[in-house]
Amino acid sequence: MTAVGNPGDAGLAPPAEYLDRLAELAVGLGANIQPGQVVGITVQSGQEAIARATAEKAYARGAKFVDLWLVDLHVKHSRLKHADPDTLTYLPSWIGERMLKLGELEAARLSFQGPPEPTLMDDIEPTLLGLDQLPRLRESVFVTGQQTTNWNITPFPNPNWARLMYPELPVEAAYAKLWQQIAFVCRLDEPDPTAAWKERLAQLEAHAEKLTALRLDSLHFVGPGTDLTIGLLPSSRWVSGRGQTRSGITYTANLPTEEVFTAPDPERAHGHVTATKPLLVPGSAVIEGLTVSFENGRVSKMNATKGHSILETMTKKDDGASRLGEVALVDREGRIGQTGSVFYDILLDENSASHIAVGAAYTTCVSAEEDRARANKSAIHVDFMIGSNEVDVDGVGVDGSVMPLLRGGAWQV
Amino acid sequence: MTAVGNPGDAGLAPPAEYLDRLAELAVGLGANIQPGQVVGITVQSGQEAIARATAEKAYARGAKFVDLWLVDLHVKHSRLKHADPDTLTYLPSWIGERMLKLGELEAARLSFQGPPEPTLMDDIEPTLLGLDQLPRLRESVFVTGQQTTNWNITPFPNPNWARLMYPELPVEAAYAKLWQQIAFVCRLDEPDPTAAWKERLAQLEAHAEKLTALRLDSLHFVGPGTDLTIGLLPSSRWVSGRGQTRSGITYTANLPTEEVFTAPDPERAHGHVTATKPLLVPGSAVIEGLTVSFENGRVSKMNATKGHSILETMTKKDDGASRLGEVALVDREGRIGQTGSVFYDILLDENSASHIAVGAAYTTCVSAEEDRARANKSAIHVDFMIGSNEVDVDGVGVDGSVMPLLRGGAWQV
Repeated sequence: MTAVGNPGDAGLAPPAEYLDRLAELAVGLGANIQPGQVVGITVQSGQEAIARATAEKAYARGAKFVDLWLVDLHVKHSRLKHADPDTLTYLPSWIGERMLKLGELEAARLSFQGPPEPTLMDDIEPTLLGLDQLPRLRESVFVTGQQTTNWNITPFPNPNWARLMYPELPVEAAYAKLWQQIAFVCRLDEPDPTAAWKERLAQLEAHAEKLTALRLDSLHFVGPGTDLTIGLLPSSRWVSGRGQTRSGITYTANLPTEEVFTAPDPERAHGHVTATKPLLVPGSAVIEGLTVSFENGRVSKMNATKGHSILETMTKKDDGASRLGEVALVDREGRIGQTGSVFYDILLDENSASHIAVGAAYTTCVSAEEDRARANKSAIHVDFMIGSNEVDVDGVGVDGSVMPLLRGGAWQV
Repeated sequence: MTAVGNPGDAGLAPPAEYLDRLAELAVGLGANIQPGQVVGITVQSGQEAIARATAEKAYARGAKFVDLWLVDLHVKHSRLKHADPDTLTYLPSWIGERMLKLGELEAARLSFQGPPEPTLMDDIEPTLLGLDQLPRLRESVFVTGQQTTNWNITPFPNPNWARLMYPELPVEAAYAKLWQQIAFVCRLDEPDPTAAWKERLAQLEAHAEKLTALRLDSLHFVGPGTDLTIGLLPSSRWVSGRGQTRSGITYTANLPTEEVFTAPDPERAHGHVTATKPLLVPGSAVIEGLTVSFENGRVSKMNATKGHSILETMTKKDDGASRLGEVALVDREGRIGQTGSVFYDILLDENSASHIAVGAAYTTCVSAEEDRARANKSAIHVDFMIGSNEVDVDGVGVDGSVMPLLRGGAWQV
C-alpha cells in the first residue's frame, strides 16, 4: 500500500511465522471454517495481510467463497467532517443485507481488531461519533444472537497501534514489541498454540460450570470507586468463549479469551462503578476516567474525563443501550492481565479484567425462555473494564448468603 | 499496509500534488459527483490512498454516503488455487445486488485501474481464470447500459505495475517514472488539468460528430496481419468519452480518454486481425500475440502466443461474447500513444490505439430502437488494440464509396 495517512506503515511487515499461526488460529480453533462455507471477512485498511492469510487458509479448508467487506476509518472521518449530520445514521441497504444473508447462508465470519487510527477522530465533534455506526452493524448483533454463524475475532498489530502503546520507541521497534505482546497473549509462542488454547478453554469452561451451578442471585463488586450490585436472572448461565452454532459447529468467537461471562438482569443494577482501564470505542474515540452510576438497572449518571459525550450518545441509542447486557469475570491467570499493558483494544482489554457491558445480551447466556425475553436488547454492546486485583467480587445467593468469588484476581470457588 | 505479497510497496507514497489532482479529476470532470449522491468506490488492495482522497472530495462535494467495495486479487488467487472448479462461477447475491441498487439510487461510481499483480495468476490453470468474474460484474455492465449512474475510472500507479513497466529500474525510480507518465497522459502536468481535458474532449466530440454524419456502412482495417471489415448498424452513433445520465448529469467515464467509438453490427465482421499490443484481462493474465478471425460477425479462429485459453473461455461465456460490441478509433494526438509505452492496463492501452471489443455494446452508441435491439449483448466486454500508425482505416459508404479515415494515425476527415 502506498501510505497516505499512514506514513509510518512503510516497510513494516508482520513476522511471517506469527502471521501464519495467527491466521491458523482464526480459521481453525477460532471460526472453525467448514468445507463449502461462505466466509465473510471484515477488513480495515491495513489488515490486508491477515485478510489474505486467512482467506488462503479458508479456501484451503474448502470454503466456497470468501467475501471481503472494507471499512476505512479515513473515509468515515471524511463523512463526519463534511456530511449533513442528519444523514449520518443512513447506511445503504446492502451493507446490512449482506450481514443478514451471511446469517441465512450459515456462513463463517472473521474480523480483526487493533485500533488502526487512535487519534484520527480527535477533530470530530464527539456527538457525531455515535451516529455513524460503522464498522459495527446492528445486523451483526442480530446475526450473532441467531447463532447461525461460526465466527472469530483476533487482534492484528499495526504501526499506529504500536506507536500508541510505545510512544517512546521508534516505530519499527514499537511494532516488533507489539507483535511480541500479541504473540504472548495469543499463545503463538507456544509449541502448539491450538493445544495451549484448548487447555485454557477447558479451565474457563470449568469455572463457568461452577458459577452456573451456584445459581447466584447477584454479584457484588467492591473496590476503589466501586460499589456495584448486579442482579442475575434465574437462569443466567455462565459461559466461556466457546460457542456452538444451531447446526452444531463449535467455534471460539474471541481469541485471546480469558473471561467467563453471563447475561445479567437488566433491571437490577444498583450502585456506582469506576472503570479500571481506558477504552477505545471502535471507529470512535478513547474514553478515559469513566465513572457510572446505576439505579434500577439503568445508567443514572455518567462521567468521563475524556470521551464523555460519545458514550452518552451511544447509551441513548435505544432503551437497552443504558442497561447491562453482560457481566464477565476474569482471573489473574489470563495472559493479557499479566502484561500489565493497556492495549486500547476492547478484545484485549476486556480480557485483562472483569468487565460489564451496556447494550445487547448474548442470548446463549440465558437458559429459560422467559429469561431470554427479559435479557437486555439493544443495537449497541459496549464493554468497559471494572475489575482489578483491588476489586473484590462476591456472589450473593438467593438466600442472601455471600461467598467470595475473586480476591486479588484469584478464584475463591 | 503491512506488505505481505507486496514486499516492495514499502514506503512508496504517491506524489501528493498529483494524487490531489487525480482525485479532483475523478470526482469532478470525471464522475461529476452531485450533492446528496451515494458513491460506490471499487477499491483494489493498494488503492487506499486514491480511495481516501476521492472519498474526501466526494463528501466535500456533498455526497450522502461513500461505500467501498474491496477486491483483493490474492484472495481471488487463493480461490482459483483451492476451490472446486464447479463453484467458481458462484458469487454471493449481495455483490450483484449492491451494484443494481447503486443503479436504482442513481449513484455515482468510481474505480481505479492499474494492474496490481501482473504475474500473480501465472500458476493458475488458464481455463479457470475466466470462470471467476471478479472484479468485473455482469450487473455493472447492465447498470452502465441503463445510464442511471455517473461514473469514472482513472489509473492509479502501484509499485508492481511500475516494476512491470520498468524492470531495469530500482522500484523507487520505476514508481516515480510511472507517476510521471500517468501525470502526462492524465494531463496532471497542465496548469489546469480540467481545462486541458475540456479542450481535448471538444476535439474528440467534433470527430465523433463528423463520423456519425458520414453514416458509414462499414469500416475497413488494413495493415500487417490485419484485413478486417466491420459492419456498422444504420444508426450507429459515434461518441467520445463524455456521457450523460438519464437524469442529465454529464460525466467522463474514462480519464484519460482519447477515443471515439461506436457499436458495430454484431453480425457483420469478416476477415482477420492482429492485435498491435498485449493486453491484461483484469484479475487474470496477459494475452500476447493475439490473432483473431471473424466470419459473419463471430470469432471463427483465435490464437495467442500467451493467454489463449483465458480469452477462449471468456468468448464462450455467452452468445454475444464472441461478437463485436465496440469499435473505436484513436488518432496519434492522444498522449498515451505518444509515450510509446505499453501500460498493460486496458484503460490506457485502449486509448493508445484503435481497438475493438468482443462482448457488450454501449447502447448509447445506437440511436434507433430497432438497432438498439440488434447491438451486441453479453456479460463480457474485452477490448483489444488493433490500430497503429501502420494500420490504415477506411470508411465504406452505403453506396460502396471508400474514404480514408486514418493514415499514419492522422485523421483524413
